[in-house]
Amino acid sequence: MKVGIPKGTRDFSSETVAKRNYIFNIIKHSFENFGFQPIETPSFENSSTLMGKYGEEGDRLIFKILNSGDYLKKVDDNLLTEKNSQKLISKISEKALRYDLTVPFARYVVQHQNDITFPFKRYQIQPVWRADRPQKGRFREFYQCDADVVGSKSLLQEVEFVQLYDTVFSKLGLNGTTIKINNRKILSGIAEVIGASDKLIDFTVALDKLDKISKEGVVKEMLEKGISEEAIKKVDPLFNFSGSNQDKLSSLKEMLSASEEGLQGVEDLRTVVNMIEEVGLSSASLELDVTLARGLNYYTGAIYEVAAPEGVKMGSIGGGGRYDDLTGIFGLKDVSGVGISFGLDRIYLVMEELGLFETVQLPKPKVLFLNFNEEENILKIKAIKSLRENNIKSELYPDTAASNKQQKKQWKYVTNRAIEFVVTDVDNGAFVLKNMNNGEQTTCSLDELINKVQ
Amino acid sequence: MKVGIPKGTRDFSSETVAKRNYIFNIIKHSFENFGFQPIETPSFENSSTLMGKYGEEGDRLIFKILNSGDYLKKVDDNLLTEKNSQKLISKISEKALRYDLTVPFARYVVQHQNDITFPFKRYQIQPVWRADRPQKGRFREFYQCDADVVGSKSLLQEVEFVQLYDTVFSKLGLNGTTIKINNRKILSGIAEVIGASDKLIDFTVALDKLDKISKEGVVKEMLEKGISEEAIKKVDPLFNFSGSNQDKLSSLKEMLSASEEGLQGVEDLRTVVNMIEEVGLSSASLELDVTLARGLNYYTGAIYEVAAPEGVKMGSIGGGGRYDDLTGIFGLKDVSGVGISFGLDRIYLVMEELGLFETVQLPKPKVLFLNFNEEENILKIKAIKSLRENNIKSELYPDTAASNKQQKKQWKYVTNRAIEFVVTDVDNGAFVLKNMNNGEQTTCSLDELINKVQ
Repeated sequence: MKVGIPKGTRDFSSETVAKRNYIFNIIKHSFENFGFQPIETPSFENSSTLMGKYGEEGDRLIFKILNSGDYLKKVDDNLLTEKNSQKLISKISEKALRYDLTVPFARYVVQHQNDITFPFKRYQIQPVWRADRPQKGRFREFYQCDADVVGSKSLLQEVEFVQLYDTVFSKLGLNGTTIKINNRKILSGIAEVIGASDKLIDFTVALDKLDKISKEGVVKEMLEKGISEEAIKKVDPLFNFSGSNQDKLSSLKEMLSASEEGLQGVEDLRTVVNMIEEVGLSSASLELDVTLARGLNYYTGAIYEVAAPEGVKMGSIGGGGRYDDLTGIFGLKDVSGVGISFGLDRIYLVMEELGLFETVQLPKPKVLFLNFNEEENILKIKAIKSLRENNIKSELYPDTAASNKQQKKQWKYVTNRAIEFVVTDVDNGAFVLKNMNNGEQTTCSLDELINKVQ
Repeated sequence: MKVGIPKGTRDFSSETVAKRNYIFNIIKHSFENFGFQPIETPSFENSSTLMGKYGEEGDRLIFKILNSGDYLKKVDDNLLTEKNSQKLISKISEKALRYDLTVPFARYVVQHQNDITFPFKRYQIQPVWRADRPQKGRFREFYQCDADVVGSKSLLQEVEFVQLYDTVFSKLGLNGTTIKINNRKILSGIAEVIGASDKLIDFTVALDKLDKISKEGVVKEMLEKGISEEAIKKVDPLFNFSGSNQDKLSSLKEMLSASEEGLQGVEDLRTVVNMIEEVGLSSASLELDVTLARGLNYYTGAIYEVAAPEGVKMGSIGGGGRYDDLTGIFGLKDVSGVGISFGLDRIYLVMEELGLFETVQLPKPKVLFLNFNEEENILKIKAIKSLRENNIKSELYPDTAASNKQQKKQWKYVTNRAIEFVVTDVDNGAFVLKNMNNGEQTTCSLDELINKVQ
């Protein structure tokens, strides 16, 4: 029998689980510290909840679960002979695996609206599944870590998410991240100024290449996409868009003076930037980036994205934004939401690259009792019980060695698991303890043993 | 649009998540304390890994995932017109959701055998899915918490699992559980003595009713099932099977004297019982139960089951046993495994019934800053930053109250979330703090504030 797992999925060894949990715990602790409450939703939802929420491409990437039992029984014969996979889906599958945490959250808010106190600050850390083509850093099963607030349009929440990013990445030791921020209203303002909102994405995509292909290249691309020379001139300051966030805001204010919405975006961003300047960040920097347009389809206010520290090649390690009609798709109107997400897998890769897992405690016993002599086992089990009661991870090698070869196997176990302390023997009720780091050997009582290894 | 979730699945509110995590954390901590290492496996496996491993009924209850894309393209036209749901499955579905943690674990051990140091003590806490008919306490998505050792036949492991059950349930405050233990070899011995191993399950099922239908009823049922009067006489001591574990062992030794395997079972159990008597348990009691026959098909040695404290109506809250050929199904022979499982959902229900969640900290802020006056917000955000750095969960109400009605809404938020401390105002740089438990109000500096709420 061939043994393996589906492509795009992963087994996690205990070492990897320990490192992942280290990240999860810091994120979770910070979420709670900031007043967010955990919820959990089922791994699969009714297909009607998910389908049509992520665009056509998204619908294709959702994993569908086959109905149980005689799932073909009620299917029309003609539909089967037609052999149309897409048309048949809804007849043989009613459930689908979660594709992200946002749509299930919106469904949760609507379904439980009478039990929720608004503004509702929730966090959710659960796996999602996508039938995407697997590649480096992209999997078919992966975790999302989301924090969102619904029921408040306050800009203070947008300030708080900048602080939350800074807090988590600082605690992870991931110093030097850049929190990029933009506002949908700025983008709408630019669209107004260039005279065509349908060109907005082409515009930002081209502008984003400024570092790589210089102003000349960018302008060429814009012209090719049908943006007029006149329009490009109106937003000329964007081609020299440097300096402090305050400089950028002044420049934007001038450039967008003809757009009411654009000016509102400038004021919203100014509030956030000013507050963060007043309060300060620990290790991240906040950078206004007008090319930031992720998820343009549903973001209506703030847009965030976090870049890894300079020198690390990696896409964004976090992102988010405000969507003013989060729950509208499920019939609850006028509930504004704003939220951010942490990209666990990419954060993991960055931390591995920067050697930031050194302090993570691997799940292994601190003390191993060798088992060369069956008679002493009761005494050893009693000692291990005391050690464990003192929160010292310890174990007895289960099989009694009946030969030199078997004794060697036990020493090999010590080496392979890099165990720090070994009780080699019991001598007249006292324990012979070996410190594997320095080879030091002592004979001690149980109390002394506990003290020495603690 | 109708909003809901698939039957047999659940949304978990933050209160429920907090209580569930309380249980998970104690189990996890004890697992690690005993030297077990965490692993994680994918939510879905190749169908070939799961199918045929749980019997015909199991195969039916496994959730299958529909292939992506044009899944009908390569299906034979005749197969479609035949409309045979079972035959079509393998053509349109290659993946299936995890049904338990044991088979994926066996697959993991075989796949990673060269990276594993044996004996391998692993734990795994992940959800599983079953297309079972939902009912009280039975769900289509639920967590299993498993600890297993592979690569050792030592009875010391069987002792350790009794201690592990006792440790976890004691830490949960779930005192008075009964850890029932049996051994497959005892059951084989009884089968030998009654002369027919194919009657063994009928026999144990009937014997298990002794309390309810008395000896007469049990004997009647056994005769009906075709077990001879002579055979029943041979195991007569089982009808008065009371007293201490040692009494039971003596009685079994006599009764099974003709069965070599039965006697080996008595000796195995005696080793475990004696060691546990020597070492002691904190709050559970160990009870030899010869009617215990769960998972008879694959257990080959120890069999465990845990009963909730007396007075609580609930099926078993844990179970496990030894299976001598765990990995044989995937081609790795002669690897013995022994393990136990904790039933999270039932433990939760028992703890709820006994009021054992009182000490669980719900995820809510300790301090809320009211927001009646926009000008003070910078000062408040700075104070909240300090509180959070001192690990005091705190938050600022996001929207500034512009009316009496909106102020009331903020106070209602305080009440609904049962928040303990409220900063109502900032007065000349000092904070007006209200203790909601006793109504006490003080004006204090930031340092004093931190001290008062800590």
